[in-house]
Formats: sequence, C-alpha cells, structure tokens
Amino acid sequence: MRIDIISCQPDLLTSFFTHSILKRAQERQLAEIHVHDLRKFAINKHGQIDDYAFGGGAGMVMMIEPIDKCISGLKAERNYDAVIYMTPDGELLKQPAVNRFSLLNNIIILCGHYKGVDERVRQLFITHEISIGDYVLSGGELGAAVLADAIIRIIPGVLNDESSALTDSFQDGLLAPPVYTRPADYNGLKVPEILLSGNQPKIEDWRHEQAIARTKTRRPDLLED
Amino acid sequence: MRIDIISCQPDLLTSFFTHSILKRAQERQLAEIHVHDLRKFAINKHGQIDDYAFGGGAGMVMMIEPIDKCISGLKAERNYDAVIYMTPDGELLKQPAVNRFSLLNNIIILCGHYKGVDERVRQLFITHEISIGDYVLSGGELGAAVLADAIIRIIPGVLNDESSALTDSFQDGLLAPPVYTRPADYNGLKVPEILLSGNQPKIEDWRHEQAIARTKTRRPDLLED
Repeated sequence: MRIDIISCQPDLLTSFFTHSILKRAQERQLAEIHVHDLRKFAINKHGQIDDYAFGGGAGMVMMIEPIDKCISGLKAERNYDAVIYMTPDGELLKQPAVNRFSLLNNIIILCGHYKGVDERVRQLFITHEISIGDYVLSGGELGAAVLADAIIRIIPGVLNDESSALTDSFQDGLLAPPVYTRPADYNGLKVPEILLSGNQPKIEDWRHEQAIARTKTRRPDLLED
Repeated sequence: MRIDIISCQPDLLTSFFTHSILKRAQERQLAEIHVHDLRKFAINKHGQIDDYAFGGGAGMVMMIEPIDKCISGLKAERNYDAVIYMTPDGELLKQPAVNRFSLLNNIIILCGHYKGVDERVRQLFITHEISIGDYVLSGGELGAAVLADAIIRIIPGVLNDESSALTDSFQDGLLAPPVYTRPADYNGLKVPEILLSGNQPKIEDWRHEQAIARTKTRRPDLLED
C-alpha cells in the first residue's frame, strides 16, 4: 500500500514515520509513505500557499492552486483509490472504515491547516472527508498520522503477532477486557484468581464477560448498533 | 500549564513537540511539555517494562512497577490535577472536555502500548481515561499528541489570532461554514458572490445558514444534544 500525505508542515510528521510500526511496515515493504511539502507547489517565490478568506474573518485559507498542482502531479503518475481530506467536519473515523481503507492500494491524504482549504478543493479533488474526532486540532497532520497508523497496523505482516489485532477493542464490537501481568501481587493488589488458574476455557469466558460488562458500563452505544 | 507525557516510545513524539504551535506555546512560556521515557524506570537492566498477560493470549501488557515509579516521582515534585490514560476504551474525547482540561495547571498523560497497561495501574493512579476515537492505534503516543495539541492551542496567547479559535467547528455546536480564498475564479469555478459583496451582515448571515445546513447534512447528531 502507498500513502501520499500532503502537508504544509511536513516536519511535524518526520519522527513519527521514522519510528514505530510505520517504520517497520516500510522496511518490510508492506507500506510506502511519502510526505509532500505543499510549499514546493507555492504560487510564488515567497512560498505562499494560503491567503485571507473572501468575506473577511480571522484565519487563513489554503489556496486551491498549490493543492491542484500537487494532487494532479501525483495522479499523473499512478491511479489513486481515495483522496482523503482530514477535517473536523468530515465523517467520524471508526474502525470499520479503517478496515476498508486498509484494503486499498494507493491513497492521498491532504492535511488541512489554518481555517481549512478553499471549498473548491473539496469539490474538485476529494473523495472522502474524514474527522478523527469531535475536537479541533492545529492542523490535519496529526489526523493524517492517526489514519495512517490505524490503517497500516492492520495490514497483514505489520504486527509481529497478528492475532493480537483481532482481540483489540472495536474489532468484535466490544471494548477489550482488563489485562494483568507480573507480579501477581503488587503491594497487596492482586490479579483475579481465574487468570492464574490455567483453565483456558474459563479464562476465555471470564474475558468475554468482562468485555461485555465494560462495554455496557462505558459505551452502551456500541451495543446498540 | 505543564503536561508530563509518559511513553515507552518517546522518540515518536520528538518532531511533533519541536515544531508546530506546541513549540510556539513553549517559547512563549504558556505551556511546558515534558516527555518521560518509561524505560528509564524499567524493572531490570534489560529495560523491561512489559510482560506476558496472565491467562495467556497474544500481546504484551505494560507492567505496574515502572509506571508507579515514574508517576510517583512526578507527584512527589508537584500536585497534578489529572492523570490521564490514553486508551481506546476510555471516554470519547470531545471539545467541551478539551476546554475543561485547558484550565488545569499540571497534568500527566500516560500512553498505553501493546495490549495496554496492567489493570491495577488504572485503579491506583488514573483519574481520567480518554479515547480520541473508535479505532485502534499502535500506541497512545498519537492520542497524547492529539490531546496536548487540542488543549494547548486554546490557551490564550498561543494562537496569533484568538478569535480564529472561537469560530472553529464544535465551539458553537456547529460545523464551520465553507471558506474560499483567491482567486475568485479558478478555471471557471467561482466563489459565491455574496462573499465578494462587502456586505458584512449578509455575509455573516450566509455563513451561519451554511454552518447549520452543513451540520444538518453531515452531523445531525450535533444538533440533537
């Protein structure tokens, strides 16, 4: 899978993509991530990529021309399955959408910044508008990193133990059950005895009950869907 | 405001906190961010901070002892208003919670990793469990960066133009209206005439109508609350 990220602050993303599982996925040639500096497509020598909003008001707007040049250049080189814009008014990202994205071959992720992109960018180029949550960030770069991380970690071969991802929260519609590790007694705080019993079927039953109980208490909305 | 982030992969976060508005907030002494390497509190010379889950199953669990040492050390130095654990089964982060967190003085953010932390960590130390969305990431570091960014950008003095944050999506319960910038005509695609009219009251009316229409279409749930 190839992910092209378009950003006006590419430096923000450097350490994230050169560490973590995203680095490993690239070393294993399971994913390629290319971060493009939007300023290389600026409309003038001053590196301008934004301008004041028509109609006034605080905050700058990202111009269409640099984004057009960057996206059109990429599309001339290969076909893209999705051109995603990270924006707080997009569709809320949830695990099923992540699973679908992970099956695509080539995607572009455009990071918004300032007050966002000129509306015409959305009309002309964007196939999916995605929000990672109901809060506002200083730019789309973190959103792009979240989306790339969520997608790439479930590509087969990226995690060292794939069965681990299958028991994550959300993959079965439930939150994960509590987990414990050594020591069994920490200053008097003990691990539930069932987990030390060695009785695997009973342990799995306990975990399933705990997952349901935790979901009922914390996120009853997940059980309604 | 002081934010202490505890992570077993602190390198992931470097470029994010040394760029962006988080850098500016620190230069202006409006925020301090300290990232702590959990491996410095490992239980042995091999840097061990995780172990297999009691009861078996895929995925490692973060041990209580290193986390205890790190958090207890911080608490011995100052009072903390919140000790937040980033986890997919936490409370879904939304803008009102971000606004509340931004009023605190000192907070700790603990990044989960692998299958998460030993449940006893949550019982003993954690005051808030927060999820940035209904999807699974390879670790809590991106969640911590999201939370820190969302909080810090609304601290007065961090954004160059504070009125910009007030018109963001969610701050008034509505998605933001479309924005446009130069050129007014891009290959035949034109900016709505009202925005070029100079009639400010009418422009504000149009923006409010557009914000309501966009929220109704995309996120009717926001209007129900």
